Amino acid sequence: MKILISNDDGIDSPGILALADELKKIGQVTVIAPRTEQSAVGHSITMKMPLRITEYYRNGDFFGYAIDGTPADCIKIGIRNIMKEAPDIVISGINLGSNTAINIIYSGTVSAAREAAIMDVPAIAVSVTSHEAKHYKYAAELSRKLAELVVKNKLKTGTLLNVNVPDLPEEQIAGILLTQQGKSKWDDVYVERQDPYGKNYYWLTGNLVQVDNALETDQFAVRNNYVSITPIHFDLTDYETYDVMKGWKLENLGNNK
Amino acid sequence: MKILISNDDGIDSPGILALADELKKIGQVTVIAPRTEQSAVGHSITMKMPLRITEYYRNGDFFGYAIDGTPADCIKIGIRNIMKEAPDIVISGINLGSNTAINIIYSGTVSAAREAAIMDVPAIAVSVTSHEAKHYKYAAELSRKLAELVVKNKLKTGTLLNVNVPDLPEEQIAGILLTQQGKSKWDDVYVERQDPYGKNYYWLTGNLVQVDNALETDQFAVRNNYVSITPIHFDLTDYETYDVMKGWKLENLGNNK
Repeated sequence: MKILISNDDGIDSPGILALADELKKIGQVTVIAPRTEQSAVGHSITMKMPLRITEYYRNGDFFGYAIDGTPADCIKIGIRNIMKEAPDIVISGINLGSNTAINIIYSGTVSAAREAAIMDVPAIAVSVTSHEAKHYKYAAELSRKLAELVVKNKLKTGTLLNVNVPDLPEEQIAGILLTQQGKSKWDDVYVERQDPYGKNYYWLTGNLVQVDNALETDQFAVRNNYVSITPIHFDLTDYETYDVMKGWKLENLGNNK
Repeated sequence: MKILISNDDGIDSPGILALADELKKIGQVTVIAPRTEQSAVGHSITMKMPLRITEYYRNGDFFGYAIDGTPADCIKIGIRNIMKEAPDIVISGINLGSNTAINIIYSGTVSAAREAAIMDVPAIAVSVTSHEAKHYKYAAELSRKLAELVVKNKLKTGTLLNVNVPDLPEEQIAGILLTQQGKSKWDDVYVERQDPYGKNYYWLTGNLVQVDNALETDQFAVRNNYVSITPIHFDLTDYETYDVMKGWKLENLGNNK
């Protein structure tokens, strides 16, 4: 099995090392990841600037390729110009901090996996729920088992799995749940400060407001110590509203021919 | 009606000027847009750096607020710190170049409108299909009519309209269609070159491969000279695969309690 591993925390993060080491047990691993941290870049791609590819070493051994771009860039250039053929699976992570509910939209970790799905490659995004994660081992082992299951069960083209793992020892994990994206949102606050020249600047902070309370949602599942596995795709059409809008008679705004 | 206008081409683009001038006919317009072009930034937000707000003038008259961030940043800080209350509608555009099919994922124009929808504000993203657009007037007028319709018909919270307008004189527009996101994708090519120091660099180019051929899809509609209006949302759950995966017995990977 050919496995491409990426992330958004950067190629020097402990999460990507734990993931690569574990996945080597079941396949040929290629690591292609951002040179620097790219959190919250969403599905950004680099078009106005060129990219560069640098070989990255850990303790003197070749570990992978560092790209001075976004997670989505890594998957695109990684498959097109480094691997030169599609891998059997792409795994993005292990991310520091959960990617549930509305955070899926902002996540660089998820965007790497989504770019793979766009390129028709099965993909998994994996996050642990703490920014000071202590328990990568269980998340890495679960990623390996899930990768085998995804390939065996032939996950639908264009769909990826978004996995969130509580940052707990394995014996404290309550179980594994199939979930849907939750509806939590951020209550944003921009902290206003003055720079040394008397000019104002604004720094984004905020609190995640949870509005779900069912184990079928990703956010609620991880808060109750379950691993959450959500199938997501990139068809953004709101079919319910599509049906409602048939009654809007949009054609009356123009002269339909 | 309080109207917030943003874009991803930057506050000095002709598209945002055409939109603001037209929307002033029906409401109180506030323009809050990126200081510089932010195409293909996806749903990126700025967290590692502070933002600054600058007043922007056109021909000596105050036009709006320039933010040194992404389109999604503009909506967040615009509503939280500049307007200080939610507008009745957010309109993003008019973008140079179509945002159909897979491009919705990468689009900064759409991300501004999506951020509004996340904040429970009705929103419209508007693009003209040419990068050398000549016909903003029709797209601006249509945006005005559609804004009135969205507020009157109470578009569902969390849904936005993604509008693509062929770059043609009004009399050559075939009509207006309610559409779904198409399935076209990019065939990426990274052009490889050497810098003056002999190091390789890679520049993203590519062709959009069209795989749809029904007027119900955005991409095909605009290619046939129709205006395309697609309702999109940010629930990324793939419910079809969710049902399929109930048969995967994920709980067997762990010890569900």
